[in-house]
Amino acid sequence: MEVTQQASLKGGEFIIKPTDAQSVFTPADFTEEQNYMHQTCLDFVQTEVHPLLERLDNHEEGLMRGLMEKAGQLGLFGVSVPEQFGGLDMDFPTALRVTEGVGGGHSFPVAFAAHTGIALLPILYFGNDEQKAKYLPGLTDGTLMGAYCLTEPGSGSDALGAKTKAVLNAEGTHYVLNGQKMWITNAGFADVFIVFAQIDGDKFTGFIVDRNTPGLSLGNEEHKMGIKGSSTRQVFLSDAQVPTENVLGEIGKGHLIAFNVLNIGRIKLAAACLGATKMAADLSVKYANERVQFKMPISKFGAIRYKLAQQAIRIYAVESAIYRAGSDIYRMEQQLMAEGKGANEALLGAAREFAVECAILKVEGSEVLDYVVDEGVQIYGGYGFSADYPMDRAYRDSRINRIFEGTNEINRLLAVDMILKKGLKGEIDLMGPAQAVQQELLSIPSMSQDEETGLFAKELKTIANLKKAILMVAGSAVQKFTATLAKEQELLMNIADMSIKVYIAESTLLRVEKEASSKGEEAMAVEADIARVYLSDAVDIVEKAGKDAIGSMAEGDEQRLLLMGLKRFTKTELLNVKEARRRIAAKLITANEYAV
Amino acid sequence: MEVTQQASLKGGEFIIKPTDAQSVFTPADFTEEQNYMHQTCLDFVQTEVHPLLERLDNHEEGLMRGLMEKAGQLGLFGVSVPEQFGGLDMDFPTALRVTEGVGGGHSFPVAFAAHTGIALLPILYFGNDEQKAKYLPGLTDGTLMGAYCLTEPGSGSDALGAKTKAVLNAEGTHYVLNGQKMWITNAGFADVFIVFAQIDGDKFTGFIVDRNTPGLSLGNEEHKMGIKGSSTRQVFLSDAQVPTENVLGEIGKGHLIAFNVLNIGRIKLAAACLGATKMAADLSVKYANERVQFKMPISKFGAIRYKLAQQAIRIYAVESAIYRAGSDIYRMEQQLMAEGKGANEALLGAAREFAVECAILKVEGSEVLDYVVDEGVQIYGGYGFSADYPMDRAYRDSRINRIFEGTNEINRLLAVDMILKKGLKGEIDLMGPAQAVQQELLSIPSMSQDEETGLFAKELKTIANLKKAILMVAGSAVQKFTATLAKEQELLMNIADMSIKVYIAESTLLRVEKEASSKGEEAMAVEADIARVYLSDAVDIVEKAGKDAIGSMAEGDEQRLLLMGLKRFTKTELLNVKEARRRIAAKLITANEYAV
Ligand SMILES: Cc1cc2nc3c(=O)[nH]c(=O)nc-3n(C[C@H](O)[C@H](O)[C@H](O)COP(=O)(O)OP(=O)(O)OC[C@H]3O[C@@H](n4cnc5c(N)ncnc54)[C@H](O)[C@@H]3O)c2cc1C
Ligand SMILES: Cc1cc2nc3c(=O)[nH]c(=O)nc-3n(C[C@H](O)[C@H](O)[C@H](O)COP(=O)(O)OP(=O)(O)OC[C@H]3O[C@@H](n4cnc5c(N)ncnc54)[C@H](O)[C@@H]3O)c2cc1C
Repeated sequence: MEVTQQASLKGGEFIIKPTDAQSVFTPADFTEEQNYMHQTCLDFVQTEVHPLLERLDNHEEGLMRGLMEKAGQLGLFGVSVPEQFGGLDMDFPTALRVTEGVGGGHSFPVAFAAHTGIALLPILYFGNDEQKAKYLPGLTDGTLMGAYCLTEPGSGSDALGAKTKAVLNAEGTHYVLNGQKMWITNAGFADVFIVFAQIDGDKFTGFIVDRNTPGLSLGNEEHKMGIKGSSTRQVFLSDAQVPTENVLGEIGKGHLIAFNVLNIGRIKLAAACLGATKMAADLSVKYANERVQFKMPISKFGAIRYKLAQQAIRIYAVESAIYRAGSDIYRMEQQLMAEGKGANEALLGAAREFAVECAILKVEGSEVLDYVVDEGVQIYGGYGFSADYPMDRAYRDSRINRIFEGTNEINRLLAVDMILKKGLKGEIDLMGPAQAVQQELLSIPSMSQDEETGLFAKELKTIANLKKAILMVAGSAVQKFTATLAKEQELLMNIADMSIKVYIAESTLLRVEKEASSKGEEAMAVEADIARVYLSDAVDIVEKAGKDAIGSMAEGDEQRLLLMGLKRFTKTELLNVKEARRRIAAKLITANEYAV
Repeated sequence: MEVTQQASLKGGEFIIKPTDAQSVFTPADFTEEQNYMHQTCLDFVQTEVHPLLERLDNHEEGLMRGLMEKAGQLGLFGVSVPEQFGGLDMDFPTALRVTEGVGGGHSFPVAFAAHTGIALLPILYFGNDEQKAKYLPGLTDGTLMGAYCLTEPGSGSDALGAKTKAVLNAEGTHYVLNGQKMWITNAGFADVFIVFAQIDGDKFTGFIVDRNTPGLSLGNEEHKMGIKGSSTRQVFLSDAQVPTENVLGEIGKGHLIAFNVLNIGRIKLAAACLGATKMAADLSVKYANERVQFKMPISKFGAIRYKLAQQAIRIYAVESAIYRAGSDIYRMEQQLMAEGKGANEALLGAAREFAVECAILKVEGSEVLDYVVDEGVQIYGGYGFSADYPMDRAYRDSRINRIFEGTNEINRLLAVDMILKKGLKGEIDLMGPAQAVQQELLSIPSMSQDEETGLFAKELKTIANLKKAILMVAGSAVQKFTATLAKEQELLMNIADMSIKVYIAESTLLRVEKEASSKGEEAMAVEADIARVYLSDAVDIVEKAGKDAIGSMAEGDEQRLLLMGLKRFTKTELLNVKEARRRIAAKLITANEYAV
């Protein structure tokens, strides 16, 4: 494999190609302005949101809306909005960084993401000039609040199975909407609802529906496990009259709105989770330093150091991948604009291009958060189970992220499905590399020790091998099941797990390599430990998933061949993970904060 | 290794010896009476507890106590209590089965376990005749309620670090207690408190303290993540006057009470978790059959079938181990009584003998429960996050089990520590087998295919090999670190994970083998799948933990040798885990309930 000289690979192409570390964007590349925006959000969360958490959870009237209005006044809703509508017109990585910044605000980032991510964006990207002029300024400055109504009681994952109907009235002036929307975030205080309905029963279409539309009414607040401060209600449409000029985008093309918005929503969800993980990891190390048992701070115990290190490893790793992908999307957007595409079309096209990475990040981001808060609870011991300490809320709030914006099952299946489709369509060349791997399997392993150099020469070689393992397993699965592969979800899940770990591990190595090339290897020693330990676990996960897949689709000689290939492609030197984790933990413990 | 002919091995000895399947107790061996008791509990939970869950969570005055009184009237508190005190005087496996039976009752089993497991038992086992006569009848028939006060704000895991003081008054009639107890279950309605305090600052001692003792007062109800229906309060002792006749057991020997009671508490906690898992698995399969997406019940999707199967696999496996160990304890108790020990001493001695297994079961039982409810939430999708559906409560309630009765970290460390100590003391012969493994490592692997027969000949051979892997890793760790091994908690955790998986996997195989020998292999086909899939995952976990341990303690040739040994000892044939899980799921889906 040759290192690509392009700015970045195509979406999903990481599966077959290496990336040059210097071409990768890392958090060290953020501009002062981007860091300032991030800090503004952190401050906002700390001074405005955290003091209200208890009251927000109790749905105190007007409280969340008030907070949201403040955020709007600060400009936080307008990061991606053009200046003509009152926005800051900043780039996509900045939008991600802002999302991370509010991520530690418990229910607040949920309200924030629903408003900016899935209510405002559809109008920005699919609205016509009148719609934009009418709604965007208010949604941007926080005088108008938005909600997004896709899910129904009978259709969640199967979003296009929605039953809400829209029928044009006799006068041709209004669509009459009837149906029931479920789990609508911000419903309790929103002014503007993006509603999806089937025109004439089968033309799935988006509508902008004002709160005061007669026939629109709300259910009670849902009782939830967590993010209790976020308003979640049913929205009932009973002969709701929506003017024809409020049709959003093209009739029958509602799925384009719904799915395009989701790509961006997924990587943003990962960024929000990232913010939440850092807060939880920070609390964990502080508590571990403070809590004394057996006459010493519990941060002195190996079992606790393991947890602190593992929190940091997984956070740092997913962070590396989030900003790598975010910046890939941004560059592709620039490229599409250079090719003459309009701004909206360009960002949507770029996000669609990297939809595989967005799905991967949605899964990993939410699972890292669940890991971090779970260990957070455990580090706090009995106090982790107490609602008077912060881990209880963090634990309950985190759990929603594996469910919404597409469940993690759906996102895993989608990620693999999209990669395979790209291969079939020839958008990326899967066949060539897959055949090369088959050839390699049948040949004697090369013993030549290529004298590669660079901080992670060995590790990146491992990454290249792991990709071969994925290609081998996925290639066999495609050959074996061809058209019925979609029914073999267990195998798709195995391939998804392999792909996720490899993407994240590679991103982490590339980030550390790049940052070390400017800051020096010494300064990045702990980060190098992080990258190596993450990789070490990734190898084992790839091997396990590979074994399960091979055992489930091949027998006899074929099985032996695949298994041999898997062994070859997952062969690595052992790492002293205990000492590496201790060094990582030591840095956090000494800093007494999440400090990587 | 030869198969032992004894009724059962010594505690911890499973690490070095095989067990004959016919010698193992399995749930199929329960008598009609034991099953009747279990059914009584299931009925009680369903008809009496479940309708009140919401009201219990709101701490409606007197409600939990009322329920507890009913349970007392039904005889459920007296399972292990001699008839002379109004009990049923049943054996230990029956007590476990009853605990499992109430396990699905959310907060109720917590109140139940605190009362019967850690409040009543200390008096039964350590009380003198007067104390027993005074307290046991009431605690048994439910007219008196008990609580157990060990933890303090500054001492949880470090229970012996308790600071509560007891000083004999000038008259010599009373001990004057001062201190603060934290997280006391049942405190809100208990009549009798078992309190631990230091006499003269260093003689850790148990006391029976009546609720109406002047100077004993209660904190407010704690706000908790889950088991909200269970009363949890601080207990303040401010010059509380406790008559000298209320000293429990010997002065300065409080740790004997605290720790002995915990052994039994741990296996009972596993049994309670087992009951809860079955309920959650049952709800999961019913929901998956009922919920339609993409025009079919979600139980048709491989991703969901995987989860349903995995829930069943882990539940069935830990169940096998719980009753195996429970019956081992019972047999040892009988043996000790035959040797002339008194009944109390015999049960405590037996539980102490199997303290390793109790710790293992505490860990696995609570982690299986967390797995099952987590996937339960995920299967329910958005409805899993709703407090109006049952998974939210199950998820929150489950999380306490990894924290109390010794955190899972403490129990993992303890399990390994106890095994090693038994080896050092010569109670079990670790040295011989460990040396044999070292020898084997240096010899050429025997290629002879011993023609073993039996349903699981191959699998039990794998188990024997996995045990060698444990001995190899643990043996190296002991050699390497000798006296400082306690500081290498990360390694101890690796060894604990290996031991836990092997014990559970072996117990599952033995159970299925034994049950198949009477019911026929056909009838036990799905259970055989369960045992094989569990083993397949166990092998991978052992290998992973082994690799991490080896990489963290050995280098160069030594590392290579150990790694080769690990590979040899974890070598197995691949299993078609996908098809096996599909068969397991099919059984549940067809039955529309947890049916294994
Ligand atoms: C607090 C909260 C806020 C929300 N906010 C909004 C909002 O603002 N706007 C909005 O429109 N929606 C919102 N949602 C809805 C959310 O997007 C859905 O809950 C989610 O899409 C899952 O749908 P579902 O709950 O119907 O689960 P289901 O789709 O019924 O899924 C149940 C289970 O089946 C699995 N499954 C389903 N289909 C398949 C398949 N084909 N293959 C394999 N497995 C499958 C799922 O992964 C899951 O494990 C919110 C939900 C919650 C709980
Ligand atoms: C709802 C509830 C009910 C309870 N009921 C009772 C009751 O009825 N009676 C009673 O006496 N107690 C009760 N407890 C207390 C419970 O037993 C303790 O919470 C538990 O023992 C843990 O102690 P801790 O909370 O102080 O945590 P800590 O001991 O402070 O532990 C914090 C973290 O440090 C780790 N840790 C501590 N020491 C070590 C070590 N040496 N090596 C490695 N890691 C270590 C722990 O594993 C944990 O992860 C209850 C607690 C709760 C939350």
